[in-house]
Amino acid sequence: MSSSPLVADPTTVTNIGIELYGLVDELYPICRSITGHGVRETLHRIEQRLPLAIHEVASGTPVFDWTVPPEWNIRDAWIKDQNGDRVVDFQRSNLHVVSYSVPVRKRVALSELQAHLHTLPEHPSWIPYKTSYYAENWGFCVSAEQAATLTDAEYDVCIDASLAAGHLTYGECYLPGASTEEVLLSCHVCHPSLCNDNLSGIAVAVALGRWLSTLPKRRLSYRLLFIPGTIGSITWLARNQDRLGAIRHGLVLTGLGAPGNLVYKRSRRGATEIDRAAVHALKHSGQATEIRDFIPYGYDERQYCSPGINLAVGCLSRTPYGEYPEYHTSADNLDFVTPDQLERSLQACQTIVNILEGNRTYVSHNPMCEPQLGKRGLYRAVGGAGQHPVQEMALLWVLNLADGGHSLLDIAERSGLSFGSIDHAAALLVHSGLLSERLDTGSMAVPEEKVRRDA
Amino acid sequence: MSSSPLVADPTTVTNIGIELYGLVDELYPICRSITGHGVRETLHRIEQRLPLAIHEVASGTPVFDWTVPPEWNIRDAWIKDQNGDRVVDFQRSNLHVVSYSVPVRKRVALSELQAHLHTLPEHPSWIPYKTSYYAENWGFCVSAEQAATLTDAEYDVCIDASLAAGHLTYGECYLPGASTEEVLLSCHVCHPSLCNDNLSGIAVAVALGRWLSTLPKRRLSYRLLFIPGTIGSITWLARNQDRLGAIRHGLVLTGLGAPGNLVYKRSRRGATEIDRAAVHALKHSGQATEIRDFIPYGYDERQYCSPGINLAVGCLSRTPYGEYPEYHTSADNLDFVTPDQLERSLQACQTIVNILEGNRTYVSHNPMCEPQLGKRGLYRAVGGAGQHPVQEMALLWVLNLADGGHSLLDIAERSGLSFGSIDHAAALLVHSGLLSERLDTGSMAVPEEKVRRDA
Amino acid sequence: MSSSPLVADPTTVTNIGIELYGLVDELYPICRSITGHGVRETLHRIEQRLPLAIHEVASGTPVFDWTVPPEWNIRDAWIKDQNGDRVVDFQRSNLHVVSYSVPVRKRVALSELQAHLHTLPEHPSWIPYKTSYYAENWGFCVSAEQAATLTDAEYDVCIDASLAAGHLTYGECYLPGASTEEVLLSCHVCHPSLCNDNLSGIAVAVALGRWLSTLPKRRLSYRLLFIPGTIGSITWLARNQDRLGAIRHGLVLTGLGAPGNLVYKRSRRGATEIDRAAVHALKHSGQATEIRDFIPYGYDERQYCSPGINLAVGCLSRTPYGEYPEYHTSADNLDFVTPDQLERSLQACQTIVNILEGNRTYVSHNPMCEPQLGKRGLYRAVGGAGQHPVQEMALLWVLNLADGGHSLLDIAERSGLSFGSIDHAAALLVHSGLLSERLDTGSMAVPEEKVRRDA
Repeated sequence: MSSSPLVADPTTVTNIGIELYGLVDELYPICRSITGHGVRETLHRIEQRLPLAIHEVASGTPVFDWTVPPEWNIRDAWIKDQNGDRVVDFQRSNLHVVSYSVPVRKRVALSELQAHLHTLPEHPSWIPYKTSYYAENWGFCVSAEQAATLTDAEYDVCIDASLAAGHLTYGECYLPGASTEEVLLSCHVCHPSLCNDNLSGIAVAVALGRWLSTLPKRRLSYRLLFIPGTIGSITWLARNQDRLGAIRHGLVLTGLGAPGNLVYKRSRRGATEIDRAAVHALKHSGQATEIRDFIPYGYDERQYCSPGINLAVGCLSRTPYGEYPEYHTSADNLDFVTPDQLERSLQACQTIVNILEGNRTYVSHNPMCEPQLGKRGLYRAVGGAGQHPVQEMALLWVLNLADGGHSLLDIAERSGLSFGSIDHAAALLVHSGLLSERLDTGSMAVPEEKVRRDA
Repeated sequence: MSSSPLVADPTTVTNIGIELYGLVDELYPICRSITGHGVRETLHRIEQRLPLAIHEVASGTPVFDWTVPPEWNIRDAWIKDQNGDRVVDFQRSNLHVVSYSVPVRKRVALSELQAHLHTLPEHPSWIPYKTSYYAENWGFCVSAEQAATLTDAEYDVCIDASLAAGHLTYGECYLPGASTEEVLLSCHVCHPSLCNDNLSGIAVAVALGRWLSTLPKRRLSYRLLFIPGTIGSITWLARNQDRLGAIRHGLVLTGLGAPGNLVYKRSRRGATEIDRAAVHALKHSGQATEIRDFIPYGYDERQYCSPGINLAVGCLSRTPYGEYPEYHTSADNLDFVTPDQLERSLQACQTIVNILEGNRTYVSHNPMCEPQLGKRGLYRAVGGAGQHPVQEMALLWVLNLADGGHSLLDIAERSGLSFGSIDHAAALLVHSGLLSERLDTGSMAVPEEKVRRDA
Repeated sequence: MSSSPLVADPTTVTNIGIELYGLVDELYPICRSITGHGVRETLHRIEQRLPLAIHEVASGTPVFDWTVPPEWNIRDAWIKDQNGDRVVDFQRSNLHVVSYSVPVRKRVALSELQAHLHTLPEHPSWIPYKTSYYAENWGFCVSAEQAATLTDAEYDVCIDASLAAGHLTYGECYLPGASTEEVLLSCHVCHPSLCNDNLSGIAVAVALGRWLSTLPKRRLSYRLLFIPGTIGSITWLARNQDRLGAIRHGLVLTGLGAPGNLVYKRSRRGATEIDRAAVHALKHSGQATEIRDFIPYGYDERQYCSPGINLAVGCLSRTPYGEYPEYHTSADNLDFVTPDQLERSLQACQTIVNILEGNRTYVSHNPMCEPQLGKRGLYRAVGGAGQHPVQEMALLWVLNLADGGHSLLDIAERSGLSFGSIDHAAALLVHSGLLSERLDTGSMAVPEEKVRRDA
């Protein structure tokens, strides 16, 4: 009877946290970068769960102000001491090599080697994660403890990598709905063995896509993008400019498995429907959460919210990048993310989707005074047990604001009640013949973007 | 010299609290319900103070989604024990019978009787107040202490009532003013021996009407309604749809005699002139007060603010229904309300009326720089003693904002000064020839409804 | 490379505080009033620093609702005791005579004398400052301690003053810029030996004018007014009604040398560009500051913000008039103001001017996704050392909001970064060819006035 058939059946999600963590675990060993076989391997694993179109874009392709870079692949890398022992070994951690390092094989003095070594003195046992995508360079990342053991001797260094014309690879899953209007869900797939940033985002996006694909009906269409950060979103946007008009809402998913509260970062426009839906979902999640205004720094929302694109795309994460010490280090590992946090993140995404799907506008057939709920079995004193005051207030709020000018999200926001209870009340009232959906604004009566007030 | 002649003369209101309480006391014994002789008797008592048109609407009359119910009258009711003693006696308290109980006269076992008994275990000496208007039923309300004395025996129960085709009765007092634009003042008259809810509202409305009727001139017209709750306002609205356009402002008056701070509940539209006037009046009352946003629950503002009616009607009360334990119990008695609280409630109503009456818009004749107040005897250094800085600031504020775009209430709000001081300053400036009323918007320059910001 | 060439060269301002204080010191002994030789002498001293047009307006000239008053000049004044000793002597303090006192020379009893004496009992050693511009009167101001020494004897009183047809004098300095749109900078020159109110304002205005006059280019034109309070601004406005349309921004400068935080009082319109510029400048000053809403009391902003004038003119001061005990007393002397406070006040004015000068609107040439900063040497990982995150954020903010709809001040406000850093980032981006100024709205793309929200 609910207007929204999308509520997850709890019996099917009992082990969803375990499943989410399982994908993180499976993808963890793969050495990804913004191009190359690691991304392809990752997309193939995702493809086993979700139908994916995999795109290959040739190196050198111009994409707005950028150019698709050469493809980078690495087979092995090491630093050997005079005994020929690997004192630093890519096989032990793919973080050891600066991503996009040019190939190198030579004997170097300690002093020259040190110029190519990156450490994290404040966390001496952790290996930092470094990249050099757009400047030709090579380097190794090691723990400060490892670096301290190096003696004033010569070392053999080898980075057996290739940096050559190839392709940038990304995956795309399109799930059509009744309307061609789209929700864009985007996550980056360019980081090597780092769990929270961003295997967690990949895992949540895959599970969200699977859930969406099993729904009996979808009002909106959904497009999930598995792309390398920055250059991937720029490439996708450059190749899909004719599709941007259909994107009504979007979310960048990243850093969703670590401890820390859920954080929603608003879109550049700031008060679009996705912003309001995400704020509402987090506010009613029962957990401590945080809402932040847009800033032009972060993940791919930087591109989706650039001034000429300006999509209604926000970003959902837990404690954002740079605000936890494990960020971009070897400590962002399988111990850092948990099934529970992954599952709660997925639930927040599902709540947001439910709001987007269910946010209709209704018109009361009895706008002159309240209709008599009692004779329709909708009023406490007459209705059956199990209906409690919250539901009664939801009925009254929907009736009071069902004037064709308020969406259900408007009503939820004004009443302070959850979207779910408002949506349910609307369904009861439609069932009782007291309400019908306002259809004259098209199949979707979407509220106008509200003007945000700066704090 | 003031533009508003409505300020109550303090010498005439010295005993107003006593008068207000006197009417509560007089009406207390009457058994009222949503129809019947109790309402008629109440209206006749009011009629002795205020000219009243009394309307009778036949049972069965359709009013929007509702139907005027049968008329209910009760003569007597009791529960007798085996000795024939009245262990529960309607003559002792009319709360003992569930309002709208169907007639009953039979001998019942304790178990059957108990299915029809209502008690308040958390207040064992209080009798609850219950109704069953739209479901055929009968019942008794007793204190938990009384209920505990009943033994496992048979009892004779009698409710000597009639529930039959008749009429719904309400009273209406119309006080015409210079403009046909109306202020609606509404209170409910359907509760039996309950003092705060709502004999206090009735008493305040009657006194307010008497005061309004004695004014030498009224700018606005006033319509006072003495109606049964819910069905009464629905009936009045259904029968007066052609008059709704004239209603510019309105107040539901209820629960005004008990302890607790004055509370103003905004209209559905939220920032209409009545909302702003009431907020201003309470803020400047010198007492702790509270402003609440509209919710679609409460008293007859539910109907006045239904989406198809959507009048600018707020609700003034002290601690609202359900937030004090005496609500709808025998403890809402003559000890619960006080002359002082009744009088302060009336004063708040008068202040609100004064604002509505006085809220004109003026245009300065000297908008280019300040006019020279000194040469007109309006400036402290030159003027007489007794003018103090507040008055001087009021003069300056009115002059500064008398640009035809700010009403006096706008000026009061922006300056933080009381409406009374702003109104007085405007009168002084008009008298000095520096200002005149802006008349090009009709006789009443009413500010546009302001957009409310949700908290 | 900065778009704003106005940043003060620190090497030239090292002793600016001393210079500012020097002018206060030089002007302190002069007896000024709203007309007369004291004003002329003051303007001549200013003229030695700043080119000034000096205007003389004849007594009796009608100016809006006012009339230019007779000119008042005073040569000497005293109260002599029976021994012929000057017990009160104008030569010791020009505050001793009520400004605009009519001439008097007679022998009076103590009782008559006392009717013309003004004291400050709460500060027994201070002389109050009093005026009687528009009521014919005479009087002396003395310390309470002096007053207490007077015995019950006769005194010879003399005020050797003239009050006769003459002129009202004011000075005006116009500094043309590329645009004819003007910034009005106004200070009052009518107070006798009072340092904070308003020799401090005069000194800051003179220094600001000197700095403006030395700038290699000005985008806006500047008009500095040195006028008697109230009647001076009224006179200027009455004589320059055809010029008011060119005034885009304005500041009244007063009370800028005393201890106490900088206070900006908004214009009547409340959210104009000068209001936003001043709020931004104070917020980023690194000092505790205060923003107040407009009230129709204070200094000449009363006239500039009268309803028919309604210019975007705010007022900058330190602790406002009446909120420090020294106000309008002999304690507002050379010890009360300091070089440091004067200099900091001037710096705030310069920051405001820099914002007004630099507040352009830009359009990005690469609005589709972020441009690649790295290849242009603008990105940390690639660019040189010394660029730090704040600058990087400023670049990203400017790029993100360079959509032709946001001025640099809009961007500074939204980002929370200082206008200076935003302005510098814009200059870097223009230099890199990524941005150009939006010129289609005229030479100045000024943001629309924002709607202020009342607190």
